[in-house]
Amino acid sequence: MPRGPLMIIGGAEDKVRKPTILKHFVALSGGRDARIAVIPTASSLGREVVDVYDALFTKFGAARVDAVRPETRDEAHDPALVKALDEATGVFMTGGNQLKLSAVVGGTPVGEAILRAHERGAVVAGTSAGASIQSSHMVAFGVGGSTPKQRMTQVAAGLGLVPTTVIDQHFDQRNRYGRLLMIVAQSPQLLGIGVDEDTCGLVEDVDGDAVMRVLGKGAVTVFDGARMVSNAHEAKRSSPLLASGVVFHVMPEGSVFNLTTRQLVPQQTDVDPDDAVELAEASRDLRQLARDIAAADAAPAAIRRRLKLRRPPTRPSDDTPTPQGEEA
Amino acid sequence: MPRGPLMIIGGAEDKVRKPTILKHFVALSGGRDARIAVIPTASSLGREVVDVYDALFTKFGAARVDAVRPETRDEAHDPALVKALDEATGVFMTGGNQLKLSAVVGGTPVGEAILRAHERGAVVAGTSAGASIQSSHMVAFGVGGSTPKQRMTQVAAGLGLVPTTVIDQHFDQRNRYGRLLMIVAQSPQLLGIGVDEDTCGLVEDVDGDAVMRVLGKGAVTVFDGARMVSNAHEAKRSSPLLASGVVFHVMPEGSVFNLTTRQLVPQQTDVDPDDAVELAEASRDLRQLARDIAAADAAPAAIRRRLKLRRPPTRPSDDTPTPQGEEA
Repeated sequence: MPRGPLMIIGGAEDKVRKPTILKHFVALSGGRDARIAVIPTASSLGREVVDVYDALFTKFGAARVDAVRPETRDEAHDPALVKALDEATGVFMTGGNQLKLSAVVGGTPVGEAILRAHERGAVVAGTSAGASIQSSHMVAFGVGGSTPKQRMTQVAAGLGLVPTTVIDQHFDQRNRYGRLLMIVAQSPQLLGIGVDEDTCGLVEDVDGDAVMRVLGKGAVTVFDGARMVSNAHEAKRSSPLLASGVVFHVMPEGSVFNLTTRQLVPQQTDVDPDDAVELAEASRDLRQLARDIAAADAAPAAIRRRLKLRRPPTRPSDDTPTPQGEEA
Repeated sequence: MPRGPLMIIGGAEDKVRKPTILKHFVALSGGRDARIAVIPTASSLGREVVDVYDALFTKFGAARVDAVRPETRDEAHDPALVKALDEATGVFMTGGNQLKLSAVVGGTPVGEAILRAHERGAVVAGTSAGASIQSSHMVAFGVGGSTPKQRMTQVAAGLGLVPTTVIDQHFDQRNRYGRLLMIVAQSPQLLGIGVDEDTCGLVEDVDGDAVMRVLGKGAVTVFDGARMVSNAHEAKRSSPLLASGVVFHVMPEGSVFNLTTRQLVPQQTDVDPDDAVELAEASRDLRQLARDIAAADAAPAAIRRRLKLRRPPTRPSDDTPTPQGEEA
């Protein structure tokens, strides 16, 4: 069985007007058969947060919503919580403080049960803090700003659902280019993933590759430092870092990116309806031409005459000079 | 005669505590021989701004400071202003509204005189608005935010001192990643240059290439869209843009970047003094070893014995097991 989809949500996902992302989560989790476990540990408002998501997921058709709310590492050993996760078709980790979430569940039976859910094909989703913790190397906390500076952020261990990555959220809204770049400059093997608010990177297993599709209102930004040059090992205090040669990808809804090969997966572009009509007409003309050629009736003059008969001129002919001396 | 240096300053350059950039401008302009023309047209506080820079440049040793302050295109035809520019060894354009500056001087005798100053080897510097106008394609105005979105900014014509570029300023402080990226996504042939506050890209002609060195407290960011993929031609309204495969370079003080070849110019890294001492010692030992070998006195045992005599052990020998059975 392939691993389940991961939903990396950048925080502040729309819950009322156009709740595309949360509806998608319920649908992927099985719709009317969905059994969802909500983990609100990151939040300081645990119970209220569960109530909100319970109401939403139920409204979107989920069969059952359970709260899995360990507040200590001791509670994260509770077999009842593990059981709820083991029976879930979808796991949802709320926003809040990702360092609290990782410090409570990392390496505990609850943490293991989340990994197990992913392995058996369940959906694992998380917003804000719940997005960050999915990476192997987690942004613990840090300051905003576009320019990467030494010591502007701290890394802790995430759950590693998306290996060899560091995930940041509220990316555009809180201006987190700098801190994500700082981490990539120090650890160029990690792919940096920044997710905007009300936006989701949906990661699925495609022939063994982790392939991400973007949903929602903003963009997902990827920093690839594979060929970068940096001075991170010698930059002093809080000085700006050299980060040269980073390849990056800012991707709005509909974009697809292969996290394993680190490449954009080209998508078909939208077709302009007028273009389509024009192309269809041209295509008919070409087919007629091909038939004429096949019928050995292909003298240029004959073809031109025929086309003239078929097409009404769009402008007076004295506007468009016609080549002379080619008629024969 | 080679073209003069350009100083692209990201705004809010230090004027009091550590005015490195402004001092550098006066020194490049000739120090005690410097004749500086200050153009405050972008600013709504023209006279006061001139007073500030006059006091500073005089303090840093400039021989003479002239105000060149056209407020209309008509005034930008004033021969007295053109003369001041033609006699200047340094031109300084202040901050303010770059669209006012470009709309007043672009294509006028004053504008031409600025280009002429650069051609004859004078320094042309500008901060904030005065930085933006140096590019060929100028950010006229726009909104902040990390994610590039359609229509978030407007482009107007700059003076083109730095060709095939778009320059933005207050880059980190006002979170202008998005708007600079939007422009590069629409015009991938332009190199996007974002300069932080109290930071300067000093561009000089080196064998025909435009080579930029970074000075100051922040960083200069360069976006190279030469190989990018974008959906800019079909993105609707204010939606986020696809900008995939952009190569970028964030460069702190001391970094050097060739704008013509679009490549970082490697610099020597700082040497740790302890490393240097250790390396020098190792080097002396190696030279001794080479002499021993030359003297055919190179049996391993003999060399080892000699090294032992010369080097006092740094830790008790029973801590470090010595290989046995190799002596012969």
